[in-house]
Amino acid sequence: MLDETARGVFTIAATPFLPDGAVDFDSIDSLTDAYLRLGATGLTILGMMGEAGKLSAGESEAIVRRVTGRAGVPVVVGVSAPGFAAMKALADTSMQAGAAGVMVAPPPSLRTDEQILGYYHNVAETLGDIPFVLQDFPLATGVQIPVRVILQIVRDCPTCVMLKHEDWPGLEKITALRRAGEAGDRRISILCGNGGMYLLEEMLRGADGAMTGFAYPEMMAQVVAACEAGETDRARDIFDAYMPMIRYEAQPGLGLAIRKYSLAERGFIAHPVVRRPGAGLSRDAMQEIDTLAARQAMRLQALDL
Amino acid sequence: MLDETARGVFTIAATPFLPDGAVDFDSIDSLTDAYLRLGATGLTILGMMGEAGKLSAGESEAIVRRVTGRAGVPVVVGVSAPGFAAMKALADTSMQAGAAGVMVAPPPSLRTDEQILGYYHNVAETLGDIPFVLQDFPLATGVQIPVRVILQIVRDCPTCVMLKHEDWPGLEKITALRRAGEAGDRRISILCGNGGMYLLEEMLRGADGAMTGFAYPEMMAQVVAACEAGETDRARDIFDAYMPMIRYEAQPGLGLAIRKYSLAERGFIAHPVVRRPGAGLSRDAMQEIDTLAARQAMRLQALDL
Amino acid sequence: MLDETARGVFTIAATPFLPDGAVDFDSIDSLTDAYLRLGATGLTILGMMGEAGKLSAGESEAIVRRVTGRAGVPVVVGVSAPGFAAMKALADTSMQAGAAGVMVAPPPSLRTDEQILGYYHNVAETLGDIPFVLQDFPLATGVQIPVRVILQIVRDCPTCVMLKHEDWPGLEKITALRRAGEAGDRRISILCGNGGMYLLEEMLRGADGAMTGFAYPEMMAQVVAACEAGETDRARDIFDAYMPMIRYEAQPGLGLAIRKYSLAERGFIAHPVVRRPGAGLSRDAMQEIDTLAARQAMRLQALDL
Amino acid sequence: MLDETARGVFTIAATPFLPDGAVDFDSIDSLTDAYLRLGATGLTILGMMGEAGKLSAGESEAIVRRVTGRAGVPVVVGVSAPGFAAMKALADTSMQAGAAGVMVAPPPSLRTDEQILGYYHNVAETLGDIPFVLQDFPLATGVQIPVRVILQIVRDCPTCVMLKHEDWPGLEKITALRRAGEAGDRRISILCGNGGMYLLEEMLRGADGAMTGFAYPEMMAQVVAACEAGETDRARDIFDAYMPMIRYEAQPGLGLAIRKYSLAERGFIAHPVVRRPGAGLSRDAMQEIDTLAARQAMRLQALDL
Repeated sequence: MLDETARGVFTIAATPFLPDGAVDFDSIDSLTDAYLRLGATGLTILGMMGEAGKLSAGESEAIVRRVTGRAGVPVVVGVSAPGFAAMKALADTSMQAGAAGVMVAPPPSLRTDEQILGYYHNVAETLGDIPFVLQDFPLATGVQIPVRVILQIVRDCPTCVMLKHEDWPGLEKITALRRAGEAGDRRISILCGNGGMYLLEEMLRGADGAMTGFAYPEMMAQVVAACEAGETDRARDIFDAYMPMIRYEAQPGLGLAIRKYSLAERGFIAHPVVRRPGAGLSRDAMQEIDTLAARQAMRLQALDL
Repeated sequence: MLDETARGVFTIAATPFLPDGAVDFDSIDSLTDAYLRLGATGLTILGMMGEAGKLSAGESEAIVRRVTGRAGVPVVVGVSAPGFAAMKALADTSMQAGAAGVMVAPPPSLRTDEQILGYYHNVAETLGDIPFVLQDFPLATGVQIPVRVILQIVRDCPTCVMLKHEDWPGLEKITALRRAGEAGDRRISILCGNGGMYLLEEMLRGADGAMTGFAYPEMMAQVVAACEAGETDRARDIFDAYMPMIRYEAQPGLGLAIRKYSLAERGFIAHPVVRRPGAGLSRDAMQEIDTLAARQAMRLQALDL
Repeated sequence: MLDETARGVFTIAATPFLPDGAVDFDSIDSLTDAYLRLGATGLTILGMMGEAGKLSAGESEAIVRRVTGRAGVPVVVGVSAPGFAAMKALADTSMQAGAAGVMVAPPPSLRTDEQILGYYHNVAETLGDIPFVLQDFPLATGVQIPVRVILQIVRDCPTCVMLKHEDWPGLEKITALRRAGEAGDRRISILCGNGGMYLLEEMLRGADGAMTGFAYPEMMAQVVAACEAGETDRARDIFDAYMPMIRYEAQPGLGLAIRKYSLAERGFIAHPVVRRPGAGLSRDAMQEIDTLAARQAMRLQALDL
Repeated sequence: MLDETARGVFTIAATPFLPDGAVDFDSIDSLTDAYLRLGATGLTILGMMGEAGKLSAGESEAIVRRVTGRAGVPVVVGVSAPGFAAMKALADTSMQAGAAGVMVAPPPSLRTDEQILGYYHNVAETLGDIPFVLQDFPLATGVQIPVRVILQIVRDCPTCVMLKHEDWPGLEKITALRRAGEAGDRRISILCGNGGMYLLEEMLRGADGAMTGFAYPEMMAQVVAACEAGETDRARDIFDAYMPMIRYEAQPGLGLAIRKYSLAERGFIAHPVVRRPGAGLSRDAMQEIDTLAARQAMRLQALDL
């Protein structure tokens, strides 16, 4: 079961599809294996970048079973839904299948502090004793969750054990949460998203690791490990070497196609297919990725990586 | 099967719940009967005001079966979903259960003409030969669909047979669509929403009826019938008599609770329960509704209704 | 100087333009006179429906001078601006010209309780001892201001003397604010907007009057007076008689053109011109208004009004 | 006068303030000099990152005069405004003061293709023969402008001579516009924003340069020059060296404070003050910038820059 001590890299798993749009279960296996080999200490499935919204209820359950059955690490399942009935149904199924916990983003309609707090009270009550991750991703949800609200959720809901941090900008939020932790609040795990774009600074501010799906997850594992070992300069060298690609992947709407192209090029999945509705890549874009990858490989070689 | 000739009143059916939040199937029956008795020529279920988003996939299917099994009129099922897999699954189930067609609102992320058109191309392809209703509800979705895009969808997708019209303001849209119909475009059915707030003018602009869930659906039936009979003054008298209540129900976020309170007071459903997350009514609000209902009854009596 | 005891009807004044788009100062005079004759106890100028955003700084100042120089009632000036420099410049000019106070809506970027509160702290500091109205209009601004934030602003900023209330739905907000007033918080004036759509219920919940620009401002004066005299049934009869027109004017984006058409038809302004960018009315719409006005006149006659 | 041949780097100029919030005219001079020294071929003032919205009308005009009086390069003035009166007033003043053209972003309310096109028709008519830059910045405005609308504006409005490109993602847009140019459409200048984050790829797709305010504008000058000289690898080396800082500056809401901190550290402005409402930097953030700057300096030294 997921708890506040979780750390390292929970890779946000892509959901591979076949050219006809069907779920590619063989590629789920190979991708799961690749993530683990490259340093994942956990996996997060059915997140936004896992194209959760495009899956039928039956497909979602099948994917949960496939991944939990194969991965030897904690699996977090995204269960965000417009209503609590669907949320609870998928959460229960997931936990029975062996998941370690679930993740919930706020619905876009929430605005005030009270609305957000009330929503997570309902979430906690709905989920019962299932541990959950609070996903804080304003760019995608439109919901801004202030530090005081996060802290109140942490106080009110013992099953809230982790923050998926991808506010942008969000560095001060980590600092504020860690100070509150030192001042007596329960210290929850903070794993950071945003494709890894600020991972270095996030670690130095007190994050416990990454929860994101950058196509080179070994970057996250190496940066987190170097930070934890106190080798900050080494961490920066690695981080900077991947930066041009991190930035290129950080194109909203297109990022998933870029990521899947890289995963396919690396041989982790069979096809770079994004399910409809979703963008494909132009030939120009593929060449840009190829060039970035080649230069990245040279920089890594120079770092002995 | 739903087609372009649909007219009259397709009542947007509320979904009744028991005090513990479970679906109240007995009330579904009594509410269905009431809608038919009060003049519905069709029913629309699992719409936004049917709390579709708060249902699990299993509940949605059970409700579809219950309503289609009881109503002797065409049933339209809301199948809007973030992805096409879930949309297709519910659409197929619904049609097998005897639904007449489905309704699809655009996802909030769409912005440009091309994005909207492309989305409905995908919808039509996904649904195959299932007739569908294009739901145009900018206040709820944030998506503004111009007349030229609606017309292009009508041209490109023969299975688009109806517009659920609830743009606000939307009167000029009806006029423009009807003019295009006269100029040679396929004439689709236009049924209007917005709680009936502009029904009188909408009918005079060329709408075919109403698709909305005002708690006194007899208003829609009577106004539509009077308009079709050319008795415009009579239609206005009826419409005006209900106006204070229509307006009171038109409070976003609270409207559904008001509607369910009225439906329960009228004996159509057992409990005025709105499923979480959702607002309840204060005692003040209930008294306001009671007063409005009493004055409305007097006005109707004066009209011999 | 505006203070917490303000009540009655502060009409939101339209800004008349000539056919070539220039400000029509003669019509400003005649419209001001009409508002006063029809029962305004105050005027609010340069609000959203006063097309404030479309005026140059010079035009805004000239309009302030013209209205304050003619009206013998308190004048509130809308000074909302993206920045405090422009806000302060217009506020100072307005007060020197004889305005009674200013009105400030929050910028659309605000989200959290803390951001909103911080913004109004800055507003109060910027304005110094100028009394201000807090405009709470989520449909237009996208900013939801919870009751607790309003109360904190009232506590922190003695110069906040009035709430322009047009949350939708907003009835419970009035009740909550009045209860807080009874429990010891400073009681500020609450004047209600939304075109008068809920004025009757708002008065019964504890509002002090209206601040809105419905083209028949005598409705507001009469409803407010009847409510204050305890003649609730009379207030309802008047209110209901105007309801079809209130509702027709309540079409976003089009409402101002409808209002100006009515004001011109009534002879209060010379031209129904809306400055660009802004919508005009179709012939169909004008006929709809004419019909509504004729029926309204008959209902009022029946009420001896 | 600005025309379609504009290329190179139009630096988005920050507006310096004194600690008390007043405009710092001496720093305007020193910053202008620095921008020119570091390779600016033009300047853009009163843009979003120039805190235009926070200035009074008088301040805006004074700044325009100060910059146009000092810079020997074309100056573009941001004149975006809620209405055309204010837009025209500032545009006329600017051109009389010696500006080369103006820049207009769409108001956030625009949604459909037709609305956007109609708006720019009005802009062109309002501005008369003043050349203007179309600012395409969906992240800030919420308005998505499709390629077909841009091309129609270019066809309909001869005074539209430049696109400030900061759609995100926006690379395909450049390619599509350049292909249209080859197919016969008028070729306008495309200068790219987004803090320079994708400048390398933008140049290779056909952009003419940069219009952005990254605190190290020499990066833009050098990358653009290397690209134009066909030294793509050199351009990439330079670009990559600045990437960690570019990324750090790309934090919405905080970016301007970061930029001003860097400009002050470099001695170009006297104070890193952001006018209220606006965020300041924490001590942590300043240290992060210092570290990034130190490592950047080392990388540049290794590149002989």
